[in-house]
Amino acid sequence: MQVQQQIDTLVVAGVGLIGGSFALALKRAGRVKTVIGVGRTLANLEKALTLGVADEISQDIGAVAHRADMVLLASPVGQMGALLAALAPELRPGTVVTDGGSTKSDVAALCRQYLPDHLPWCVPAHPIAGSDMSGAVAAQYGLYENRRVVLTPLAETAPEAVDAVADLWRACGAEIHCMDAAEHDSVFASVSHLPHLLAFSYVDRVAAKANAERCFDFAATGFRDFTRIAGFQQRSHPVQAGSVIDYRAGLDRMAALLEAGDAEGLNRLFGEARAARTRWHQQFLRRG
Amino acid sequence: MQVQQQIDTLVVAGVGLIGGSFALALKRAGRVKTVIGVGRTLANLEKALTLGVADEISQDIGAVAHRADMVLLASPVGQMGALLAALAPELRPGTVVTDGGSTKSDVAALCRQYLPDHLPWCVPAHPIAGSDMSGAVAAQYGLYENRRVVLTPLAETAPEAVDAVADLWRACGAEIHCMDAAEHDSVFASVSHLPHLLAFSYVDRVAAKANAERCFDFAATGFRDFTRIAGFQQRSHPVQAGSVIDYRAGLDRMAALLEAGDAEGLNRLFGEARAARTRWHQQFLRRG
Repeated sequence: MQVQQQIDTLVVAGVGLIGGSFALALKRAGRVKTVIGVGRTLANLEKALTLGVADEISQDIGAVAHRADMVLLASPVGQMGALLAALAPELRPGTVVTDGGSTKSDVAALCRQYLPDHLPWCVPAHPIAGSDMSGAVAAQYGLYENRRVVLTPLAETAPEAVDAVADLWRACGAEIHCMDAAEHDSVFASVSHLPHLLAFSYVDRVAAKANAERCFDFAATGFRDFTRIAGFQQRSHPVQAGSVIDYRAGLDRMAALLEAGDAEGLNRLFGEARAARTRWHQQFLRRG
Repeated sequence: MQVQQQIDTLVVAGVGLIGGSFALALKRAGRVKTVIGVGRTLANLEKALTLGVADEISQDIGAVAHRADMVLLASPVGQMGALLAALAPELRPGTVVTDGGSTKSDVAALCRQYLPDHLPWCVPAHPIAGSDMSGAVAAQYGLYENRRVVLTPLAETAPEAVDAVADLWRACGAEIHCMDAAEHDSVFASVSHLPHLLAFSYVDRVAAKANAERCFDFAATGFRDFTRIAGFQQRSHPVQAGSVIDYRAGLDRMAALLEAGDAEGLNRLFGEARAARTRWHQQFLRRG
């Protein structure tokens, strides 16, 4: 299976936090010669040129696809279908196509839909990095140092293509994990997307209160931490109806304990949750 | 209205983070001569003596009440009824009774129930301070510096009693706010108790998942911040069924948007929530 190993030209669609930081780290590591930044907003592309995040820019991925040794789709997942459709007729065999989306089953389905003949070179990926900034100005050299990147190769993906992507992420300082797309989506629905939704929904409810100003005035560090992810960009809207409904069932049980004034039941639930959170935090600190 | 102004002897029921830190700060400021620590657990009381948090200790508040110029109930609200019942026959007129509970309507009701003749000297209070530590070892000199303390006097409370309590909290470095108990409870239900419950319930749901270990393994900084308050002591269990139900209604609307794949509606909701959170955070940073 012929897979492009030396990546001279990297096409990055979506030159923001995720794509821009990948480009900066690889250029600093001397792992790519030319980064072509692709996007819809000319102002952001020109910013990317000025900042040295991209060496060339284009608003038409189809026009530059044939030059790519690797393509990173770092746009919202909602825009990837159109990008893949534009790529399909122009890609050379051997050009690795990867992405930075935070959901993977949908990206895998898009690859099958738009690149059915290119699947050996498709490597869906999820770099675990977030920020409250966006656009080319958010790109950082060190964003991926000691961060995790999850690769979810398709059954058809060539091992050499996985290696090529893993190799570049490691050059950015990241640690590679592989799992299948369904398990990835289940894990990140729980630990990332659901808290995002819960925090957004929580802030929305507080802001809707008659005494919202007073509430915000007395909101302190607990509120700050609980809502921090509500200040972050949501890079996609994975359908989390299922996990929202599961969470809501937990709330119903708690509301019942509260209405019953069952302090013992609440203490048990809170105590177990505190213990689980403490165990997790100790592991997290060891993880470094 | 005769109100004890010079507080020579302070009785602190519940020598932990809240009560112990109040005692330490006032002793350092030279504002109290003698702190009598009252509690149920002898080991913690002896620890308080060793650490200099208390000068004397007792397991029977009734036996020391007559010596008190001020009593601070820093126990969980659930234990305050029993403490007030034991105090009632022993209190001198003029002895100020205050507390550190995070809910205030219930404390006001307990004062009316157990100290009907002592209401002029009752000053329900809520120092806004939390920690993941408890017990006398959690007591800190500086805990209340630049923190807020909300006083919720009763209609019957003497202004001089409010002044006496405010004065001591200011000596701890705290900023005083007064509001009625109902408004206090509405504000803190929104910005403190509800996030606590939501975080506890969230951790409980993740821990219950078949792939919980894998979920915890990939939980990162977003999870850490969102769940931090789940590592904190819940000092009481205010019945939040109402706010839980209101929050759940918000989740229902979001689940509907997700099921409908209404990306525009979700973007609007998330965008407004992000903007509200960003505005709040700018105010919070200015607050210092």
